[in-house]
Amino acid sequence: MAPPVKNAVRAAAAPTEEWSSQPEVTAAHPPKNAAGDGDRRPISTVLIIIAMQTEALPLVNKFHLSEDIDGSLFPKGVPWVRYHGIYKELHINLVWTGKDSILAGVDSIGTISASLVSYASIQALKPDLIINAGTAGGFKAKGACVADVYLVSNVAFHDRRIPIHVNYLYGIGARQTFSTPNLIDELNLKVGKLSTGDSLDMSPQDEVLILANDAVVKDMEGAAVAYVADLLSVPAIFIKAVTNTVDGQKSIAEEFLQNLIAVCTTLAQTVSQVVDFISGVYQIIGIRKSTSVYRKLYINTDEYYILKIMYQFA
Amino acid sequence: MAPPVKNAVRAAAAPTEEWSSQPEVTAAHPPKNAAGDGDRRPISTVLIIIAMQTEALPLVNKFHLSEDIDGSLFPKGVPWVRYHGIYKELHINLVWTGKDSILAGVDSIGTISASLVSYASIQALKPDLIINAGTAGGFKAKGACVADVYLVSNVAFHDRRIPIHVNYLYGIGARQTFSTPNLIDELNLKVGKLSTGDSLDMSPQDEVLILANDAVVKDMEGAAVAYVADLLSVPAIFIKAVTNTVDGQKSIAEEFLQNLIAVCTTLAQTVSQVVDFISGVYQIIGIRKSTSVYRKLYINTDEYYILKIMYQFA
Repeated sequence: MAPPVKNAVRAAAAPTEEWSSQPEVTAAHPPKNAAGDGDRRPISTVLIIIAMQTEALPLVNKFHLSEDIDGSLFPKGVPWVRYHGIYKELHINLVWTGKDSILAGVDSIGTISASLVSYASIQALKPDLIINAGTAGGFKAKGACVADVYLVSNVAFHDRRIPIHVNYLYGIGARQTFSTPNLIDELNLKVGKLSTGDSLDMSPQDEVLILANDAVVKDMEGAAVAYVADLLSVPAIFIKAVTNTVDGQKSIAEEFLQNLIAVCTTLAQTVSQVVDFISGVYQIIGIRKSTSVYRKLYINTDEYYILKIMYQFA
Repeated sequence: MAPPVKNAVRAAAAPTEEWSSQPEVTAAHPPKNAAGDGDRRPISTVLIIIAMQTEALPLVNKFHLSEDIDGSLFPKGVPWVRYHGIYKELHINLVWTGKDSILAGVDSIGTISASLVSYASIQALKPDLIINAGTAGGFKAKGACVADVYLVSNVAFHDRRIPIHVNYLYGIGARQTFSTPNLIDELNLKVGKLSTGDSLDMSPQDEVLILANDAVVKDMEGAAVAYVADLLSVPAIFIKAVTNTVDGQKSIAEEFLQNLIAVCTTLAQTVSQVVDFISGVYQIIGIRKSTSVYRKLYINTDEYYILKIMYQFA
């Protein structure tokens, strides 16, 4: 298995040559780059992974996605729901983990459903890019406020304590996410580290590890999606909107419920901007103009780094 | 989705008629039972899910299994290892979650890997029965001692705290396992409840929920395997051997490491006895004799209960 390449390596390896002289790009016959980094293809298929219906629906509406009602993508029995459509030449797939099969009305949140849906969706859809979007708790002490939206630089777990030698690091499962500095600059996004665990609340033991993880936001899925995306070498980015503070005076559950709907609207706006950014790049490739000004966006799925526009836009 | 049927319902629904007059059973054309409960087939393919190499190897040796070295069963990148072979007419598949791809020598333990391997293996192998075998911590206060082997009656999580209405129950994820009273009687197995979490240690918050779950043993995979098996309607049983006490005076990590190898040998012996029991039943079906004395073992994969021998052996 190829472990994820760290940002510094990715940035150093990203070639700087123009692409205007390259042959036509197709997914079936992607060009080689001058640095010999292997096959590349433009971003065509985007997989958005979401754990809650309330988080999913604003995006389903925004992108005019249709629900996959024949149910052939996933096996019988799983509650996962796929919405899909074409948006600005991108194939958008939004997969929501669905409602629990036993407890009516309960979203299938948490790391197990998120990892299963990531695995099954990657196998079925072969996405070029994963966006895990969702709500999160934020740390006031780190500068997070309700309705802030973060692009996540690093993920780790805070509820997998395995105090035996290097198994400890496996439990923490810290990893850098896919680096997108130009996206951050263009959208003026806040950037911070994410810590993931299967509880909405925070125990003292969780808090110790969240602090050790240097997290500004805390969710229930991100590090699980990142684990699966890394296993299967699919670039993944994480967009997390703050519904509540974790280190504030209010009840986490109450503040979460109070802000959920409004914050999901904000989340959808940012995800939409990110997809617009990606689609804009894709469209430039599609009409093959301005290549000397706007560098193209390619993903090398073998070497696992993103090139061009996200590093060097405009 | 069909939620798992509770034991009482299963037992009540299990028909009692003899099967000696039934037509030949094949997986492709299983017979209908007199009660109209749908299709059935004998146990033919067994999937053993294991999280640690030390737990897996005694069983690989016992059943003379071969490692699947062409790697075609699972996608490129995952560390999962399948061993397989024929043992007493059963197709035995042992899938170990493998070593972490980044941290050399570290087993891929915990709920995420266990759920992914369960999902991928069920999709690839279509097993008739899952056996999740592994080591566990035991509660002295509940009568557990080191080297005890438990067949698990119920599973639940103890580290998924979601204090919002019925979401709380989703987090706990309590479910009964597949009921096998005749297996328990035949092998004289201890029976108890299992609580699952992603930490080897036990925080005070974990302890509260483990007590609420009424658990006698505590592991890091069981409830995750049960969740996936239920989603995909595959019967699953759980065999857990105690390496350490959780409520004793000794360090959990030290006692775990001290007893691991010896307890894995004991675990393998019990799993082997369980497989012998199943294969014995299967062989009776295969040679079509003594059907009026030994009731046959069938699984109804649609209605999700086990029939005959496990309820009414001899």
